[in-house]
Amino acid sequence: MRIARFSIDGNVAFGAVEGEGTVESGGLVIDIIKGIPYTDFELSGTKVPLSKVRLLPPVLPNKVVAIGRNYAEHAEELGNEVPEVPVAFFKPTTSVIGPGDAIEFPSFSSELHHEAELAVVIGRMCREVPRERVKDVIFGYTCANDVTARDVQRNEAQWARAKGFDTSCPLGPWVETDLDPSDLAVQATVNGEQRQLGRTSDMIRSIEDLVVHITEAMTLLPGDVILTGTPAGVGPLTVGDEVAVTIEGIGTLTNKVIKRG
Amino acid sequence: MRIARFSIDGNVAFGAVEGEGTVESGGLVIDIIKGIPYTDFELSGTKVPLSKVRLLPPVLPNKVVAIGRNYAEHAEELGNEVPEVPVAFFKPTTSVIGPGDAIEFPSFSSELHHEAELAVVIGRMCREVPRERVKDVIFGYTCANDVTARDVQRNEAQWARAKGFDTSCPLGPWVETDLDPSDLAVQATVNGEQRQLGRTSDMIRSIEDLVVHITEAMTLLPGDVILTGTPAGVGPLTVGDEVAVTIEGIGTLTNKVIKRG
Repeated sequence: MRIARFSIDGNVAFGAVEGEGTVESGGLVIDIIKGIPYTDFELSGTKVPLSKVRLLPPVLPNKVVAIGRNYAEHAEELGNEVPEVPVAFFKPTTSVIGPGDAIEFPSFSSELHHEAELAVVIGRMCREVPRERVKDVIFGYTCANDVTARDVQRNEAQWARAKGFDTSCPLGPWVETDLDPSDLAVQATVNGEQRQLGRTSDMIRSIEDLVVHITEAMTLLPGDVILTGTPAGVGPLTVGDEVAVTIEGIGTLTNKVIKRG
Repeated sequence: MRIARFSIDGNVAFGAVEGEGTVESGGLVIDIIKGIPYTDFELSGTKVPLSKVRLLPPVLPNKVVAIGRNYAEHAEELGNEVPEVPVAFFKPTTSVIGPGDAIEFPSFSSELHHEAELAVVIGRMCREVPRERVKDVIFGYTCANDVTARDVQRNEAQWARAKGFDTSCPLGPWVETDLDPSDLAVQATVNGEQRQLGRTSDMIRSIEDLVVHITEAMTLLPGDVILTGTPAGVGPLTVGDEVAVTIEGIGTLTNKVIKRG
């Protein structure tokens, strides 16, 4: 099931996306959910065309934990070694935007990069999750763009500003709850031209590894998000660009880059 | 004014702490606040002895932005150079605990360190704050302990696990709103023995510098917290220790270290 969060006439709700098509092509409807999707919920049967709503970030995370250098070819392209332990960092909730929202090119950087990533959405409060229970704490998967101020990242030992500025974490367009994430194509295009293409099967650490590693230290809450790293092909974004992250079996997350006003 | 957050008989409220004394010695009362303290609020006149309430973390931050290596002697003691730009990282909200709460020694570390720090509490939503407006976005100041798994910090390039594990961010005992933070003694004791002693006047970057630097990238929200770095003298904590952070003009934040259950 594809779970979206959206606003219509000033009201915000979750809904199940039904039908064939894409955000851009149309043909999709949303069946409004009664309750919140992490627990038992019902479909209301009230359906609205997707074209009539504004899609929001599909989750409201308490935190976003991101993983760096989880694809060998991407580590190489930036001149980094594959790390012995996963590189885990946070993106703040103030960085999260939804499908169609603008990525604001910040004034303190002159080198913005896209990073297409599979995002794992947590469904249950959990800590110290054993490997065999990881599937039980995952609600679903969505597309993410770990937008990075590459010049700032090079100059600052920790990445709070380089990867945590406002609008640096597009998520969406919805959460796919029925998906085997082990071998999916992850793609980024800029203005329709392919920039990144990889497969989740090339991750150095699997989703199970990452959930075990992160929850060894900290509690994850329903709606929390893990970004699983980006494949090779990261590159610059400039004002006016339209960047799209497409993940097989999920959909496409599209955002335009504007100058911060 | 000293603003605390507390629970009594299952209800949570903010209140103004009045009287002379300390959390431990008694003699303090709380005047319950109507409303939330970041905006205009009134004291209710209903007063309860501090000894009858449970103090909670004095703020509910959306994010905690912490600064590393902001005192030259501390950078030296760990063999680090003073960084050319401030080292900014996040501690997640799941790491925040209050006065008297237990610091849980996590299983993935065998070397836990205390780091006494002055914490700045933000009072207004803000971004790109000019230096001369910094004072307008600050609500007040509290004590923080940036508890660090030093062994994990050495092994992991980013500090999400080393400084973001559950219970790694004690805050409290309350927020002091009337304080000149420019030259305050910052002290840590373990089991009553002094370990850290510094003065905020020795910070490499001032509070103004830090707010400008952080908000250049990201929006801060009311209740967000900035940890301003720790003076020299950091050292190990073991199960059973009682660690106390005292800041001149604010008060003392005391936490006991237990084994994670």
